[in-house]
Amino acid sequence: MADATRVQDPALRGRIMSAEEAAGLIPTGANVGMSGFTGAGYPKEVPVALARRIMAAHERGDPFRIGVWTGASTAPELDGALAKVDGIEMRLPYQSDPTCRERINAGQMDYIDIHLSHVAQFVWFGFLGHLDVAVVEVAAVLDGGRLVPSSSVGNNKTWLDQADKVILEVNRRQSLALEGMHDIYYGTRLPPHRQPIPLVHPSDRIGTPYLMCDPAKIVAIVETDQPDRNTRFTPPDETSRMIAGHVIEFLGHEVKKGRLPNTLLPLQSGVGNVANAVFAGLKDSPFENLTAYTEVLQDGMLDLVDSGKLTFASATALSLSHEAAARFEKNIEEFRQKIVLRPQEISNHPEIIRRLGIIAMNGMIEADIYGNVNSTHVMGSSIMNGIGGSGDFARNAFLSFFMTPSVAKGGTISCIVPMVSHVDHTEHDVQVVVTEQGLADLRGLAPRQRARVVIENCAHPHFRPALQDYFERAVRGAPGRHTPHLLDEALSWHARYLRHGTM
Amino acid sequence: MADATRVQDPALRGRIMSAEEAAGLIPTGANVGMSGFTGAGYPKEVPVALARRIMAAHERGDPFRIGVWTGASTAPELDGALAKVDGIEMRLPYQSDPTCRERINAGQMDYIDIHLSHVAQFVWFGFLGHLDVAVVEVAAVLDGGRLVPSSSVGNNKTWLDQADKVILEVNRRQSLALEGMHDIYYGTRLPPHRQPIPLVHPSDRIGTPYLMCDPAKIVAIVETDQPDRNTRFTPPDETSRMIAGHVIEFLGHEVKKGRLPNTLLPLQSGVGNVANAVFAGLKDSPFENLTAYTEVLQDGMLDLVDSGKLTFASATALSLSHEAAARFEKNIEEFRQKIVLRPQEISNHPEIIRRLGIIAMNGMIEADIYGNVNSTHVMGSSIMNGIGGSGDFARNAFLSFFMTPSVAKGGTISCIVPMVSHVDHTEHDVQVVVTEQGLADLRGLAPRQRARVVIENCAHPHFRPALQDYFERAVRGAPGRHTPHLLDEALSWHARYLRHGTM
Repeated sequence: MADATRVQDPALRGRIMSAEEAAGLIPTGANVGMSGFTGAGYPKEVPVALARRIMAAHERGDPFRIGVWTGASTAPELDGALAKVDGIEMRLPYQSDPTCRERINAGQMDYIDIHLSHVAQFVWFGFLGHLDVAVVEVAAVLDGGRLVPSSSVGNNKTWLDQADKVILEVNRRQSLALEGMHDIYYGTRLPPHRQPIPLVHPSDRIGTPYLMCDPAKIVAIVETDQPDRNTRFTPPDETSRMIAGHVIEFLGHEVKKGRLPNTLLPLQSGVGNVANAVFAGLKDSPFENLTAYTEVLQDGMLDLVDSGKLTFASATALSLSHEAAARFEKNIEEFRQKIVLRPQEISNHPEIIRRLGIIAMNGMIEADIYGNVNSTHVMGSSIMNGIGGSGDFARNAFLSFFMTPSVAKGGTISCIVPMVSHVDHTEHDVQVVVTEQGLADLRGLAPRQRARVVIENCAHPHFRPALQDYFERAVRGAPGRHTPHLLDEALSWHARYLRHGTM
Repeated sequence: MADATRVQDPALRGRIMSAEEAAGLIPTGANVGMSGFTGAGYPKEVPVALARRIMAAHERGDPFRIGVWTGASTAPELDGALAKVDGIEMRLPYQSDPTCRERINAGQMDYIDIHLSHVAQFVWFGFLGHLDVAVVEVAAVLDGGRLVPSSSVGNNKTWLDQADKVILEVNRRQSLALEGMHDIYYGTRLPPHRQPIPLVHPSDRIGTPYLMCDPAKIVAIVETDQPDRNTRFTPPDETSRMIAGHVIEFLGHEVKKGRLPNTLLPLQSGVGNVANAVFAGLKDSPFENLTAYTEVLQDGMLDLVDSGKLTFASATALSLSHEAAARFEKNIEEFRQKIVLRPQEISNHPEIIRRLGIIAMNGMIEADIYGNVNSTHVMGSSIMNGIGGSGDFARNAFLSFFMTPSVAKGGTISCIVPMVSHVDHTEHDVQVVVTEQGLADLRGLAPRQRARVVIENCAHPHFRPALQDYFERAVRGAPGRHTPHLLDEALSWHARYLRHGTM
């Protein structure tokens, strides 16, 4: 496939090699910055080859583990393959791989859960140690180290800038028409030299369409034509549709009250079915000329672009189903006018999120009656995925929604509890809690007032009386009545679930 | 004292009246925005007169309560006087008055604990209801509604802009030489019209020295010569000096490692003795040409300006002892070149804090072994003061310290606990935990690693074995080993204290 090479720089063609050879350049103990965000734009060949190398080393009795830094979640060929051979010493920031999760929760692998907007700057600050190698997927290698990014940007700019050695995976499956869709901001600096980031609208372009890499650092180029881990799209279920309905009704109410324009404000949403349901619901809403400033562009948002409701979307990654990916590729020339992909330090930057006045919609594991939110831990001890960008958005948003079905695991778990078993978003950062039961608007409410609306509006009827009972007894019996809690009982719902399989 | 009037606008002189008359313009049920931040620049006459009016109403059997919105904490003449007569329905954001605290924790008064940077924008967004009256202390009333601000700025700009009616207290005790020391930024907008805030150095002036108020809204002017609630200065105790020593040693280490310049980065610190001790320690440190970008300028920081170590300080309030206040006033011409007071939405703005790369140093009530921090609640239920600006700074800082003595209440309480009883700062936002025992640098550590250094470095030796024992049993017995917790036991230290008076 010589004619198909996308390595246009003749000087770099000599560094094209097999994934095995490239993986051989990564030593044990290395910190490796890999591309990839929500199953998009991750390297597909080198991590698998590296996993084989690690397995062989372990079979010889040699230690071999690395630190894996990414944008966010990747795919079985990266996190899965490396975790299966016990090749990851430490993983950051967000991940969603079942094997990784199992190893982390077995205490066999370390995981650091960092706000997505913090990752790049912590690396620049030198807070996470030295970055040895970058393994980054690109769509093409142009001249002089200019790279056409692939279906996600994530932390790639930082990995390319900071790593000693760079391994590129050039993916022929990624459309060459991606060229021009990215906006890579090279204006970040270390304090005290930082300047305002000149972005005031989701469609603003403030950088260049290319990632830049010192060609001298590129030690290997691996060619591939493997597709992204495109997710299966499932139509929103009834619960998701009900949650979405409450959100959209509330937004309509805010427009009526004059607190939001009919174009709303730029939308952010986490991934998953509830998010897709919200975007499906927006298609039939009275709002017009919407924009999005978010992390991940999913099917629901692509449909909204298609329908003309969403005039512009800024993200750091595409995360599409097979069907949507095909549609995206077919109409890429048109989508390129309406979509921009940015580094995650910009897509998730507090400065921009606050300035734009984002409407943030994120999922959660559980909320408590006072509006504290747990986004990351199951029963206090086990990690699910990670905080991702939810903190970046929730704290700095104009309006911040946290959404979940009111029950989980066939109704044995209440997602509204007396006290969350882990806090990722404090009472100070949570404005609206939504379940299929209803919506609790916590703005301007003191803790006891919050408890009443969360229990009444959001809890499942099966658990509502017990929550009401806890709250009333706490108001009577707690040592203080600002945020009344019975500490002997506050976490007993989780303890009961662990013991008896039901809360 | 006719010649002493500071109301220069002849048209407004006719609105000078007694505090009683002015208080008569505030109806029951009103939301009142009052000036005041850390005992500086709060109105001193009208709240006391209003309290008398409320007491009289209550004696007649008439209901009379108001909503009190401020910058932060005020003084006995405001929070104390109104709380004593049960005159406050709802209070926001930060407060530290003992009577208020008692009423809030008795469930007799509502309190909403909001990030200080969020308050102004929530009012503009219409999230907290309508602001009826502003009661704002100023140093002088110039022509055309131009006001010389007093010893704090807080949310005064927003109160003056948003309230229907404005009552000014003109305080002759505040130096007229304050004129020119303030920088009031009038460039804030509602989304989607926000622009970058053009501040890149603590000394930048981006606004005007004056607060502006539509003269038509000024319904009363009350003259006073009462001083601010100047705090008594107590020299740092041994514990505070040890905490400060660890912080300064760590900063020196970061300079040596090349992660910080020898001028450090702009300093922020909470109020109190530990903060003063840090600034006392900095006076003898090798660092030079320091700057501060903080909320409150305390004695320690003034000394540092005096000594030449601190070249510039930006804050929203002065909070000085009698002695320091006298010295400040005497040398105000010189201090005015080196100090600027800004609205708290700017002093605490995430955009600016992140851009400048602040070194944030805040106190706390307790931290848990995994690095979650409780800044607000005693034993989970009772409010102490509030989160203040600690969240604004900690999340967006370059480096974020949380400091406390390792024990409280004569050693009966451990400030390092298995699980905090309330979370204000999550594991994602806490980088360095410091007690007099030592310092735990949590950067780049996974939860179990964090637990080891927090217990080893920060816990008091009396409680260390029990924390170690909890952690080891949790690692063995928890359902997951990412953040191992025994939920039956996680809050048992607090429950034990409530039951037996010792953890």
